[in-house]
Amino acid sequence: MIDLETIRDCYISTPSKIVLLVVDGLGGLANPDTGRSELESARIPNLDAMAQQSACGLTTPVLPGVAPGSGPGHLALFGYDPLKYMIGRGALEGLGIDMELKPGDVAARGNFCTVDHRGMLTDRRAGRIPSELSEPLCRRLDQITVPGAELSVLPVESYRFVLRLRSPGLSERITETDPQQVGVPALAVQPLDHNAEKTARLVNQFVEQARQMLAEEERANMVLLRGFAQLPSLPPMGDVYRLNPAGIAAYPMYRGLATVAGMKIIATGHTFGDEVETLREHYKQHDFFFIHYKPADAAGEDGNFAAKVKRLEELDPFIPQIRELNPDVFIVAGDHATPAIMAAHSWHPVPFMLHSKLTRGEGVPRFNERACAQGSLGRIPATQAMLLALAHAGKLVKYGP
Amino acid sequence: MIDLETIRDCYISTPSKIVLLVVDGLGGLANPDTGRSELESARIPNLDAMAQQSACGLTTPVLPGVAPGSGPGHLALFGYDPLKYMIGRGALEGLGIDMELKPGDVAARGNFCTVDHRGMLTDRRAGRIPSELSEPLCRRLDQITVPGAELSVLPVESYRFVLRLRSPGLSERITETDPQQVGVPALAVQPLDHNAEKTARLVNQFVEQARQMLAEEERANMVLLRGFAQLPSLPPMGDVYRLNPAGIAAYPMYRGLATVAGMKIIATGHTFGDEVETLREHYKQHDFFFIHYKPADAAGEDGNFAAKVKRLEELDPFIPQIRELNPDVFIVAGDHATPAIMAAHSWHPVPFMLHSKLTRGEGVPRFNERACAQGSLGRIPATQAMLLALAHAGKLVKYGP
Repeated sequence: MIDLETIRDCYISTPSKIVLLVVDGLGGLANPDTGRSELESARIPNLDAMAQQSACGLTTPVLPGVAPGSGPGHLALFGYDPLKYMIGRGALEGLGIDMELKPGDVAARGNFCTVDHRGMLTDRRAGRIPSELSEPLCRRLDQITVPGAELSVLPVESYRFVLRLRSPGLSERITETDPQQVGVPALAVQPLDHNAEKTARLVNQFVEQARQMLAEEERANMVLLRGFAQLPSLPPMGDVYRLNPAGIAAYPMYRGLATVAGMKIIATGHTFGDEVETLREHYKQHDFFFIHYKPADAAGEDGNFAAKVKRLEELDPFIPQIRELNPDVFIVAGDHATPAIMAAHSWHPVPFMLHSKLTRGEGVPRFNERACAQGSLGRIPATQAMLLALAHAGKLVKYGP
Repeated sequence: MIDLETIRDCYISTPSKIVLLVVDGLGGLANPDTGRSELESARIPNLDAMAQQSACGLTTPVLPGVAPGSGPGHLALFGYDPLKYMIGRGALEGLGIDMELKPGDVAARGNFCTVDHRGMLTDRRAGRIPSELSEPLCRRLDQITVPGAELSVLPVESYRFVLRLRSPGLSERITETDPQQVGVPALAVQPLDHNAEKTARLVNQFVEQARQMLAEEERANMVLLRGFAQLPSLPPMGDVYRLNPAGIAAYPMYRGLATVAGMKIIATGHTFGDEVETLREHYKQHDFFFIHYKPADAAGEDGNFAAKVKRLEELDPFIPQIRELNPDVFIVAGDHATPAIMAAHSWHPVPFMLHSKLTRGEGVPRFNERACAQGSLGRIPATQAMLLALAHAGKLVKYGP
C-alpha cells in the first residue's frame, strides 16, 4: 500500500488552505424498518448542498471487511498506511487522557482487579469500582518508585488506569499480566526479546509494590497490565507534505492522534461549536486543519439509530460556518462507519466529499452512502484522501516529466 | 503495485491483434458555465457508438491526486509501474527530438543563458532567443570534444537544447548546474556517488569549453544543464507479453516512449490521418499497435475548452476507419486528463473503453467521464489496461490450475 512518503518529492508549499473535517463514525447502514441509513434519514441540507458541488466517493479505512479502531481510522486519513503504523492499546489509552507520551515511553492499560488470599483472581475488573474509589488509589500507585525509571499512573475511569514508564532503553516487547480468566494468579511479565529485559523487570517491580500497597483493599486489591506500547515513530505530516498542520479536537484521544501525526494542537472547548470558533480564530496561522466531530460515533456505538441521525443533523448547520472561511479545499470524511444497527465500528466504505474550485458540476444529489458511491471519486483507500486534498489545493505537482 | 512481469508465465502468443489508441490528455472537467466536460460537450457519434459495445471504465494513471507527465502516463498504459520506472527529464527531452539514446548514454536538458562579465547569471533563458539564433550555436557546441567521451548537442527550440554524453561507465547521479536564480554563477557539477565522478568531470569540461566558445555572444554566452538522465532499463514489452509490438506516432516524444518500451517504430507522417494510414499499411506485420493522438492534449494545455472539444470531434471520424481493420481488441485510452479549465495535466481518472467480441451489450450510452464511471470495468490502475487487452485477445491464459 502507498503511504504519504511514496511520492514525497512532489509536495510543494503554497498559501492555499485545507480543512479536513472528520466525522467520527460517519458511515452507517440501513435501518431494517425504513431501508434508509442514518445519513439517508437525516435532514442535512447543507451537507447535501455541498455534495452537489463536490467530488464524492467512498473511503475504505484499512481493507474491505476490516473495521478499524480510532487510531488506524485517523492515521489512514492523514495518509499513513495503517498496516504499517500501529498505535498500541496502552499508548492510545494514554493519549485518550491527555497523558504526555514521549518517544521511548512505554504505556500500559491497567485494570484494578480482585484476588483472594492465595492471590487467585476472583474479578478481573474489581467489581467495576466507581471512579470516586479508583482515583485515590491511582494517586497512591503514582507514588510508587522503582530504581532507574520514572513511573506515572493516571486514572481513566472506573477500574481503568494508565501506567507510564519513562527511562532510557525501554521496550514494548513484554508479555501482559492479565491471564484473561479468574481462578489463576496474575502473570509475571516476561521479556519477548533481550532488549526488553529491563522493562520487564521494572514492570514486575511496580506490580509487586502495587500488590503490597493495595493488599488491605476490599475489591481493588491488585492490578493487571496489558497493551504495553510505545508511540510509533511517524514521519511528521507537516514535514512530508510541507504543511503547517493544526489539529482541533474537543476529545483528548483525537488531539493525541493529531500530535502523533506531527500536528500542532490548538486548545479548544468541549463542543463542536467551540472547535469551529477555534478554527475561525486561528484560520490565518495554518494551511491545514484537522477538525473532529465526535457525537455521531458515540450514538452509533450506543446502537441508537435516532440519536445518530440527530447528531448528524446537529452537525449540518456548522457546514456553512466552515465554508464561510472559504478554504481552498474542504473535505468531509469519516474515520470509519459506526452503523447504529451494529452498535460498533464497522468496515463499510465511508462517505467522502471534497470541495474545491475544480469540483463544480461534479457532485451527487445528496451526501450519503448510496449517493457517494455514484460520485466521481469512486472507492478509494482512505490513505489516498490527502493526495486528493493536496492536489486540489495545488500543493502536489506533476509526477515525472 | 503490479506490473507487466507479475504474471509473465500466463502470456501466450496468438495471431489476434490489439490496437491501443492513446488520446493524449483525453480526460477533462466540467466547464463551469455548462456543467459539461469536453467529452460531454463534443459531438462524437463514433466514439459513443463504440462505447455502447465496449467494456468501459476509468483509469488512474499513477495514484489519485497525482498528475503524471507524459512518461509515466504512457509507461503505465504499456503495463510498467510508473513508480518503479522513471524516464528522467534529459532523456525524455532527447526522445522528444528524435535523438538516439542508447543504454548508458546520459542526456541533459540544456538552456542557453546570459552571464555578466563576472560570470553572474543575469538571464537563465538568454532572453528566450529564437531558434534561428540558437541552432547555429548548438552546431558549434556539437563540435566540442572532451577526451574519453562522445558528445552531441541538438537544438530543441528557442533557448533549449539537449546534451548527450556517450562513454562506458557513465552515471546520471550528478548535480545540476542551474542555480535556479540570477545574480549567482552557474554551479559546477558534483558527483552524487563514486561511480559518477567520471561523468561529473566530463560535463564540467564540456561546460568550460562552452563558456569559452560562447564568450563573445551577446545574450547566449553560457549554458545551464539539468535533468541528467539515463534511459531506464525496461523489460521489453514484446518479450514479456510475447507480442510483436509497433508504435505509430507523429510526435517524436511518443515514438521515444514506444522505443523505451521495446516497440518497433513505424515511420509515419505529421497528422493522425497519416498515422491511421500507416496502421492500415502495416496491419499484417504486427499483433500490437500503439497509435497516438496528440491534438487534444495541446488544446487542453492551452486552456482552450472549445478547441479541445473540436480536437476530440476531429478524432471521431477516424474511429470507424480503425474499426474497419477489425482488430480483435481495440482500446481507446488516455495517458492522463488535461482539463481545459486547469490548462495542465491533471490527476483525474481517464475514460477508457475496450472493444472485443466479448464486450457487446456491456457498454454505456456515451464515451465520457461520467458514463465511463458507470461502466463494467469500474476504476482500474492504468497499469492493468494491458492485462485486459491481452485477456480479450486470448493472449492471457488461466492463472493456476
